[in-house]
Amino acid sequence: MRKYIKKKISIKKVRVGKNVKIYNPSNIYECEIGDNSIIGPFVEIQKGVKIGKDTKIQSHTFICEFVKIKNNVFIGHSVVFINDKFQKGGPAKGNKKLWKKTLINDNVSIGSNSTILPVSICSNVVIGAGSVVTKDINYSGVYAGNPAVKLKK
Amino acid sequence: MRKYIKKKISIKKVRVGKNVKIYNPSNIYECEIGDNSIIGPFVEIQKGVKIGKDTKIQSHTFICEFVKIKNNVFIGHSVVFINDKFQKGGPAKGNKKLWKKTLINDNVSIGSNSTILPVSICSNVVIGAGSVVTKDINYSGVYAGNPAVKLKK
Amino acid sequence: MRKYIKKKISIKKVRVGKNVKIYNPSNIYECEIGDNSIIGPFVEIQKGVKIGKDTKIQSHTFICEFVKIKNNVFIGHSVVFINDKFQKGGPAKGNKKLWKKTLINDNVSIGSNSTILPVSICSNVVIGAGSVVTKDINYSGVYAGNPAVKLKK
Repeated sequence: MRKYIKKKISIKKVRVGKNVKIYNPSNIYECEIGDNSIIGPFVEIQKGVKIGKDTKIQSHTFICEFVKIKNNVFIGHSVVFINDKFQKGGPAKGNKKLWKKTLINDNVSIGSNSTILPVSICSNVVIGAGSVVTKDINYSGVYAGNPAVKLKK
Repeated sequence: MRKYIKKKISIKKVRVGKNVKIYNPSNIYECEIGDNSIIGPFVEIQKGVKIGKDTKIQSHTFICEFVKIKNNVFIGHSVVFINDKFQKGGPAKGNKKLWKKTLINDNVSIGSNSTILPVSICSNVVIGAGSVVTKDINYSGVYAGNPAVKLKK
Repeated sequence: MRKYIKKKISIKKVRVGKNVKIYNPSNIYECEIGDNSIIGPFVEIQKGVKIGKDTKIQSHTFICEFVKIKNNVFIGHSVVFINDKFQKGGPAKGNKKLWKKTLINDNVSIGSNSTILPVSICSNVVIGAGSVVTKDINYSGVYAGNPAVKLKK
C-alpha cells in the first residue's frame, strides 16, 4: 500500500509578549501575539497574523494569513477567518494578489461559530454567535445573522 | 525570543457512569457523563457540565460551563454552546453572575455546526444542522435556520 | 472513581495516490484519497469516503460515511458533512438504510464553516462561507446563505 506524506502541526516562530498562554495541540506559526493574550486548544493561526494585547482566541478557531486583530478582542470558539473570496470562481491557489485583508479593531467581541469574510470591523462591536460577516462594519453596535446586520436596540 | 506559557489539554476529574467512551485528544474536566455515553475527538467540555445517559457528543464540539444535557441526546459535530451573551457589550470576563444556563432535555437531537445560545430545549426536539438557537424551545418538533424557527410539517 | 474507556484517533487503512499529504492529529480511516490531495489537521474522515485528485480538505472538517468528493475540489475549514437527516425524529443509530449519500463533483469550492446535508453538487460550483446546503445543486454558479440559494451575478 502506498504511503502518504506525514505533516506535523507545531507552535513555532511565534513572537510573543509577556504572559502569553497557548494551549497545545494547536498549529501556530510565524505570527505575533501581544501581552496577556490567550490561545485555546485545537487552534490554527497562520503566518503573518498579528494579534494584540489582552486578546482571547477560543478553541477550534482558524485565523488565516492577512488577518490583524488588535487589543482586548474576544474571538469565540470555531470562528473561521477567510482571505480568499474565490473571485475567479475558485481558490486563489497561492496567488496572494487575490487575497484580501481583515482588520479587527480594539474591543471587538466575535461570537462562536461565526465566519468572517475579509472585512474591517471598527472598535466596540459585538458579533452575535453563528453570524456570517460579509461587509465592513464601520459603526459600533451589535450585529448578527447570515449575513450579519445591525440589530436594533 | 520570549517564551509563551504552555498549557496542556487533558481528560481529568470526569465522573463517569458505566461504559462511557471518550476519544482522545479532547479537553474534558470536572464534569459528569452518564452510562453508555460517547464523546468524540477534538471535543472540549468544561467544568460543572452534566451529561446524561445514552448520549452522544460528536467531534469538534464545545460545551461550556452552565450546560446540562439529559438522556438519549445527540449533539452533532462542531456544535458550540454559549453561556455569555455579552450583555454588557463584551465578554463577562469571569463574572459568572452574567452567565446564563442551558438545559437540553431527553431525546433532543442537535444537528452539526449548530450554535446554542443559553436556552432551555424541551424533550423530543430536532434542531437542523447549521442552526442558531436563540430562544427557549417549549414544544416538540423540528426547528432550523438562523435564528432557528419551527418548521411546518 | 469509575474509569472511562479510552479511544484513540488514528490515520489507518487509508488508500492513497501519489504525493498525498496528511496533517496529524487527524482521525482518518478506511477511505481513499487521490493523487496530490492534502488533508489539514484536526480533520475526521470516516470509512468508505472517496476523495479524488488535487483536492484540498482544510482543518477542522468532518466528512462522514456515504460522501464522495471528486477532483480539484476545495473544502474549507470547519465544514461538516451529514448523512443522517433524522428522518425518524432522531438519529438513525447505525441503521444505514436511513443514511443518504453526498456527491461533490469536480471543481467545486465549499467555503469554511459550511454545512452540507446529503446532496449532489454538480461541477463548477462555489458555496459561500457559512452556508447550509439543503438541496441538490444542478447548475454551476455561486450559492450562499442558510439555506443556500443561488446568488445573482
